[in-house]
Amino acid sequence: MHPVSRFPIPELDTLPEDIRTRIVEVQEKAGFVPNVFLAWAHRPEEFRAFFAYHDALLEKDGGLTKAEREMIVVATSSLNHCHYCVIAHDAILRIRSKQPLIADQVAVNYLNADLTPRQRAMLDFAVKVAERSHEVSDADFAALRQHGLDDEDIWDIGAITALFALSNRVANLLALAPNAEFYTMGRAPGKV
Amino acid sequence: MHPVSRFPIPELDTLPEDIRTRIVEVQEKAGFVPNVFLAWAHRPEEFRAFFAYHDALLEKDGGLTKAEREMIVVATSSLNHCHYCVIAHDAILRIRSKQPLIADQVAVNYLNADLTPRQRAMLDFAVKVAERSHEVSDADFAALRQHGLDDEDIWDIGAITALFALSNRVANLLALAPNAEFYTMGRAPGKV
Amino acid sequence: MHPVSRFPIPELDTLPEDIRTRIVEVQEKAGFVPNVFLAWAHRPEEFRAFFAYHDALLEKDGGLTKAEREMIVVATSSLNHCHYCVIAHDAILRIRSKQPLIADQVAVNYLNADLTPRQRAMLDFAVKVAERSHEVSDADFAALRQHGLDDEDIWDIGAITALFALSNRVANLLALAPNAEFYTMGRAPGKV
Amino acid sequence: MHPVSRFPIPELDTLPEDIRTRIVEVQEKAGFVPNVFLAWAHRPEEFRAFFAYHDALLEKDGGLTKAEREMIVVATSSLNHCHYCVIAHDAILRIRSKQPLIADQVAVNYLNADLTPRQRAMLDFAVKVAERSHEVSDADFAALRQHGLDDEDIWDIGAITALFALSNRVANLLALAPNAEFYTMGRAPGKV
Amino acid sequence: MHPVSRFPIPELDTLPEDIRTRIVEVQEKAGFVPNVFLAWAHRPEEFRAFFAYHDALLEKDGGLTKAEREMIVVATSSLNHCHYCVIAHDAILRIRSKQPLIADQVAVNYLNADLTPRQRAMLDFAVKVAERSHEVSDADFAALRQHGLDDEDIWDIGAITALFALSNRVANLLALAPNAEFYTMGRAPGKV
Amino acid sequence: MHPVSRFPIPELDTLPEDIRTRIVEVQEKAGFVPNVFLAWAHRPEEFRAFFAYHDALLEKDGGLTKAEREMIVVATSSLNHCHYCVIAHDAILRIRSKQPLIADQVAVNYLNADLTPRQRAMLDFAVKVAERSHEVSDADFAALRQHGLDDEDIWDIGAITALFALSNRVANLLALAPNAEFYTMGRAPGKV
Repeated sequence: MHPVSRFPIPELDTLPEDIRTRIVEVQEKAGFVPNVFLAWAHRPEEFRAFFAYHDALLEKDGGLTKAEREMIVVATSSLNHCHYCVIAHDAILRIRSKQPLIADQVAVNYLNADLTPRQRAMLDFAVKVAERSHEVSDADFAALRQHGLDDEDIWDIGAITALFALSNRVANLLALAPNAEFYTMGRAPGKV
Repeated sequence: MHPVSRFPIPELDTLPEDIRTRIVEVQEKAGFVPNVFLAWAHRPEEFRAFFAYHDALLEKDGGLTKAEREMIVVATSSLNHCHYCVIAHDAILRIRSKQPLIADQVAVNYLNADLTPRQRAMLDFAVKVAERSHEVSDADFAALRQHGLDDEDIWDIGAITALFALSNRVANLLALAPNAEFYTMGRAPGKV
Repeated sequence: MHPVSRFPIPELDTLPEDIRTRIVEVQEKAGFVPNVFLAWAHRPEEFRAFFAYHDALLEKDGGLTKAEREMIVVATSSLNHCHYCVIAHDAILRIRSKQPLIADQVAVNYLNADLTPRQRAMLDFAVKVAERSHEVSDADFAALRQHGLDDEDIWDIGAITALFALSNRVANLLALAPNAEFYTMGRAPGKV
Repeated sequence: MHPVSRFPIPELDTLPEDIRTRIVEVQEKAGFVPNVFLAWAHRPEEFRAFFAYHDALLEKDGGLTKAEREMIVVATSSLNHCHYCVIAHDAILRIRSKQPLIADQVAVNYLNADLTPRQRAMLDFAVKVAERSHEVSDADFAALRQHGLDDEDIWDIGAITALFALSNRVANLLALAPNAEFYTMGRAPGKV
Repeated sequence: MHPVSRFPIPELDTLPEDIRTRIVEVQEKAGFVPNVFLAWAHRPEEFRAFFAYHDALLEKDGGLTKAEREMIVVATSSLNHCHYCVIAHDAILRIRSKQPLIADQVAVNYLNADLTPRQRAMLDFAVKVAERSHEVSDADFAALRQHGLDDEDIWDIGAITALFALSNRVANLLALAPNAEFYTMGRAPGKV
Repeated sequence: MHPVSRFPIPELDTLPEDIRTRIVEVQEKAGFVPNVFLAWAHRPEEFRAFFAYHDALLEKDGGLTKAEREMIVVATSSLNHCHYCVIAHDAILRIRSKQPLIADQVAVNYLNADLTPRQRAMLDFAVKVAERSHEVSDADFAALRQHGLDDEDIWDIGAITALFALSNRVANLLALAPNAEFYTMGRAPGKV
């Protein structure tokens, strides 16, 4: 197994200012640098585009809670067997949901997880976009609207799924390893 | 979600003596009663047959270590999206391997996990038995023998996979929920 | 092709008493020893557990007829391309149903077989448990109840399917060959 | 289940002369009229084209024996779960091979059947044409030539597979039922 | 890539009279000889059977328009990744429908193409026959009848799909190359 | 069918300056505004991130030609049945390769297309990343290096595939329609 990535990890001080700043910020907040930042920094333009896309979809306010956005990431990354994405976003989901068990449940089989009917509908749709997006139909939109999701929410569900279709494939290409910290973060109930 | 199982959970004192004894023993050892014991006790004859099969394959000595036997369980139960089996045997694998990270790695994508070549060959074969056992050929046996595995080891790999093909399906039939304890057991390095 | 199994077939007189007795009994009843008994006897503990599980599910009374239990075996073993299980249980199904044609129909495509609506629902569910048990839902239980099947019957359908998920995989691991007798047993209408 | 076909079965004396003659001939030879003749006669032009194609590929001399041609039919029709084709051609294969067991073996799992290496290679290729013909490559031709098959034999293997890709689909469209006679024909060793 | 076919292309003047005539006729009409005629002529009997079947289903009058028949060919040949069939029948569909865009739409994803509900139902059924014909049920017939399709139309949809299940496989076996003319035919709106 | 997208198309003069400028530039260059620009403009931040990612991978110099980059887009978008992506990038591939036939070949079945061995290896890898990225191994890298591709080229192949895993899913979510211009662009040999 590659320690972090199949590709070179740049030295922090060789990186463009904006990328270095982003990495320092996340380190201060999380206490460590998630490997996804180091690995993507090998390609600065792709780094900027990826995290811009990420922030636009995962850090925004809107109809979906931040925990629900992470559920989409975990459920679809698990289908793609993405080592980094499942372990890292399991941790983020535990923290954002303040429910220490839900992430592992969604990763193994969201159909048996402790979800609201709305969350279940949301993940059914995300899985459809992940696996057979060409079958998405107006009827799917109608079904989601019955759970109080509007068209902007549906775009978000689909686009988050699509973004992780990208990041799962890149992470698997790199054999990107999750930091050891992610495995245990947020496992104590109600804590981060 | 069903709290433990879709089927009734018998009262302990209504159970046959041998089953009650087994349950009390596991409780004393683990500190709690894993739900698999309670759920299967709804059918005493099947309880006895299942745990007899289980002990014959998982608790025996032989060419495979106990941790390697658990890897087979985790890798194939994950393919079958068995909520109970993945969460519970992740915990047992962490404890038996004394490696806190390996279980999640095997559950998400054993192809990217920190395994020896022999373990990788073992899991390749287990996955073949789990998904397309009718394609097993003498050539598969020859490949495993090159990793120092003998025919009895190969039987063990195949039979463990087969036993969990059974238990994954029953657990999914029951919507068997893992005990909360399993999610965190063995996550501290070198501890149980 | 291996004559009976990829693994050694023990001499009858080397076997533990209970196993030898069981084999002698089946020989007296059937007129020959089905190879499954000889092959599993290589592992006495697994032999005992397997046939205990088998008898608990296939030989019991209950809401499903014995022929219906065999239909489940044939339909799901066919999906798993299990040479031994399809040929042997085709024979048993012909005998138990007293319908010489139904077994081959179920083996090729149960969707086109001469079944009652209840049997069709039963096999639809068995196939779901065999192929994607993680999708089993409360709605499946409700659908089966509409055909007069109760929860114990549903456990039976699921558990029989699960047991043959095990035995199909072991039989394929062993390349277990069906006895020549099975191919023609029960083909004359109303006879055994 | 439909007795013979979802579509009307024409009266023999309303059929065009050539079709009636063909049906009478097969009846005299086999002792009954296989349902495929009655069902296809609903469309006389398609009847003529189908049996012309059939005779050109199945009744010809050449590098493949007639039994080998039937093995291709059975192996690929089984993948397509074609009730009529598997039951009827199992019978024809038993008769043409004079081996009463081989047909059921090929129908369940040709990978475990009593075949020569050449027959195994032939069926591997047929299954590839049946399931993913777009992946056929020059390397497949080279592999078959190593078993002494020439390009005309390879065309035959592929074209027989293709013809039954057609007939399996039409038979399934019609829910075409096999005649009861087929189930038992050729089961006594060396007899027809 | 093979220029036309993996198999020999016969000289026109060595061909039987009826086949030569057919080829000359199509050349006069189309301005070139589609490679399918040259490639199949390697086997005169199969040539006659194939084009007889083809004409019986594609050139007939009936409930389906000729453009609709071609849609079935394009949608199902695309699933089979048949190079020749998709490129050639895309052209024929453009010409017969007088809609220059519809063919590419159907080839990529008929679920998003500009179709009437009846055409959509027709292609849903064709795809089912192409991919899992053993699941065709009386309910499928009922659904098609609701779109005004009668049983003869349904036979046509199924049989056209079945014929191209054959021709896709043969064309892929041959690596049959489409003539360059097909790529651009009928792309100007309303023209041929 | 939705004329352009399931979601609203913003008026050009309501868009942020940078996005309007980009759209005007592409219109001047291409003679029309490809619908992908209009549809993504509904979400300006995602628009910027997507086209930044796109330009970083598709417009750069490097070991892969621009035509080869488009081949990757066409081959993998076809697997995802993405209407917009296949039709639009077929056109771009025709133009960039100056080969009017190659794009349709790659879209239907790249295994039968007129490719160099290096291009074939490149697309084999892209398809693996698209469909089962978790199986990517060091052996795949070694195989690509044998065709003269270095690690940066391999990143490009994987990342282009990943980017279109995203864009195929978003385009299918939107039911994004290709502009009519794309269907015929670049079909005359050597012209644009």
